[in-house]
Amino acid sequence: MDTSVYQARIDNVQREMGKRGVDLLVVGPSSDLRYLIGYDAHLSERLNLLIVPGKGKPALVVPVLEAPLARSAEALVDIHEWQETESPSQLAGNLIRALNPGSIAVSDQLWSGFLLKLQGELPDASWVSALEIIKPLRVTKDDAEIDLLAEVSRLTDEAWEEFIEGGPLSGLTETQAMERLAGLMQKRGLGASFGICASGPNSASPHHHTGNRVIQVGDSVIFDWGSTLEGYHSDVTRTVCIGEPTDEFRKVYDIVRRANQAALDAVKPGAACESIDKAARDLITAEGYGEYFIHRVGHGLGMDVHEEPYLVGGNTTPLEIGMVFSDEPGIYIEGSFGVRIEDSVVVTPDGGRRLNEATRDLTVMD
Amino acid sequence: MDTSVYQARIDNVQREMGKRGVDLLVVGPSSDLRYLIGYDAHLSERLNLLIVPGKGKPALVVPVLEAPLARSAEALVDIHEWQETESPSQLAGNLIRALNPGSIAVSDQLWSGFLLKLQGELPDASWVSALEIIKPLRVTKDDAEIDLLAEVSRLTDEAWEEFIEGGPLSGLTETQAMERLAGLMQKRGLGASFGICASGPNSASPHHHTGNRVIQVGDSVIFDWGSTLEGYHSDVTRTVCIGEPTDEFRKVYDIVRRANQAALDAVKPGAACESIDKAARDLITAEGYGEYFIHRVGHGLGMDVHEEPYLVGGNTTPLEIGMVFSDEPGIYIEGSFGVRIEDSVVVTPDGGRRLNEATRDLTVMD
Repeated sequence: MDTSVYQARIDNVQREMGKRGVDLLVVGPSSDLRYLIGYDAHLSERLNLLIVPGKGKPALVVPVLEAPLARSAEALVDIHEWQETESPSQLAGNLIRALNPGSIAVSDQLWSGFLLKLQGELPDASWVSALEIIKPLRVTKDDAEIDLLAEVSRLTDEAWEEFIEGGPLSGLTETQAMERLAGLMQKRGLGASFGICASGPNSASPHHHTGNRVIQVGDSVIFDWGSTLEGYHSDVTRTVCIGEPTDEFRKVYDIVRRANQAALDAVKPGAACESIDKAARDLITAEGYGEYFIHRVGHGLGMDVHEEPYLVGGNTTPLEIGMVFSDEPGIYIEGSFGVRIEDSVVVTPDGGRRLNEATRDLTVMD
Repeated sequence: MDTSVYQARIDNVQREMGKRGVDLLVVGPSSDLRYLIGYDAHLSERLNLLIVPGKGKPALVVPVLEAPLARSAEALVDIHEWQETESPSQLAGNLIRALNPGSIAVSDQLWSGFLLKLQGELPDASWVSALEIIKPLRVTKDDAEIDLLAEVSRLTDEAWEEFIEGGPLSGLTETQAMERLAGLMQKRGLGASFGICASGPNSASPHHHTGNRVIQVGDSVIFDWGSTLEGYHSDVTRTVCIGEPTDEFRKVYDIVRRANQAALDAVKPGAACESIDKAARDLITAEGYGEYFIHRVGHGLGMDVHEEPYLVGGNTTPLEIGMVFSDEPGIYIEGSFGVRIEDSVVVTPDGGRRLNEATRDLTVMD
């Protein structure tokens, strides 16, 4: 992205700070940092910290050995390098004290170890989460961001279509099956981001850790995976059946597929986030499986795999044009099997538009 | 590992809490959590939190959809599941308040967003970093841990030896070269952990982001990579030259290699951490390249790639038997080239023992 894009984001975040009476914002290595200044900093015990005052040019505290990486941002920020034998918290503390802030917002993913040191440097400041300041910027995506999300989703779909034509899964371990899919992502220039393969009874555990269970005929197998393109994520789930599906599998699959569609159909500007969850949940509940749909229907998607807005009961935030989120109902019958179908969806003036079109038809593999 | 191993670790951390007057410890998803109870929790906006009182059984706050993963720890902790529409910070706050702690230690990698919420729940508590409580446990490795570190290092060396016999690098991008090496790691059952390939002038940037620069004859190419085995890391760096090395490259390579050896030779129980850094730095400085060695000589290695002890000027901590760390001097001439050689080293009664034996001879590739 162009420097002018980042400068506009800094201006916007400073405007949000003004609205909320926050004097200063600190941001560690995270998608927030990359969003604001385009610097994809290493996450480690060596402090990288962006310090944004209410007005004027921000400062960036950088370990000397990572300074070459930060140069791309030097038009936007004053760079302060620290040597290996210096204390970066003291350096940051001095820079912050000079601005005499009363209220300091902290980006959510900064490690507590750093926050506690900064709190020690500035014992009289009040500290708040930066979420409410950064959310208004990041929660809706502009056209360039939507193009990236659409493209990474399209490539991910392509990998899936090739995967399901790629021969039997039975006899492979979950890890091997996931590696095959990851290879098809890599072939399209998509780096490793994340992936779950959950087979048989493991498919009833929504966040299963992919392991060495051997996939067998009769299994339900859930693949939940994604990658990034220039920092923007895809996130798709498909469930396949190995061999002829049972009647129960067919029934559950059909319910989940209809719930996915019901959530999509509920999307429109102004609808409450929780109403999308409710659309899927009501359908699943009416079919008698409500107690087995144990998670929210979706989460925002962008530079983080999970971000605002969350489509969950209790969240009355109205949907806005340009919001992007997952639509991923699931039914999980512990000890037996699970089914989940997930697409990414963008809010348009006319309703929800799917970014994923990999087949949602019941797919039987060997 | 056996439940008894984790129980002993909980007992030990409670003993350290007692020594330091800390009433309660909170640990989020991190190596600290995995070390203490063997639960490799998802790092996300959904709170997982271990709450360790001064005495008695800890509590574990877990999102309901991840509860199946946490069951392995149920002999060690009381599991408290939260539903998607509940507030996990309130749940954690209630559990903590019931214990009425004055002083609460926080594991360093917990996200600030969670810490700020917990601080809001318990406004009268004092909050400190848990580093000084957990460090005494994790900074020295027991025999089982050293065996894992030695094995993952051996497999990483093997991948390297195959890599340098695997054909020309010139014409490949950094990303392609790194993928080839990653494939050789995968072949040995080692998952993706991290990897830097920095070629030509990029090799002068110690934490370069592997990119699309095409490797050329005349380049210095640094590979700094590693993986994990049962949660324990390897971390190796080798530098190769593409085509006939210049006299300057030969000279710098030889200095870095001797500095790597000098640091190893300085390792013995009781030696100060900074003395290992100094051994390498003095040699490089005497050769006239001191200003180009811009980072510490090493970092501890275990369940994190970077952890205590840090071998850096100012750290007078004495080495102990069973500490494991990197030995990685480097020389970086901006705009031109860099050289780094890194091995993992364990402290034994007789001095330092390398865990890596991939060749340190100057390696020329096409």
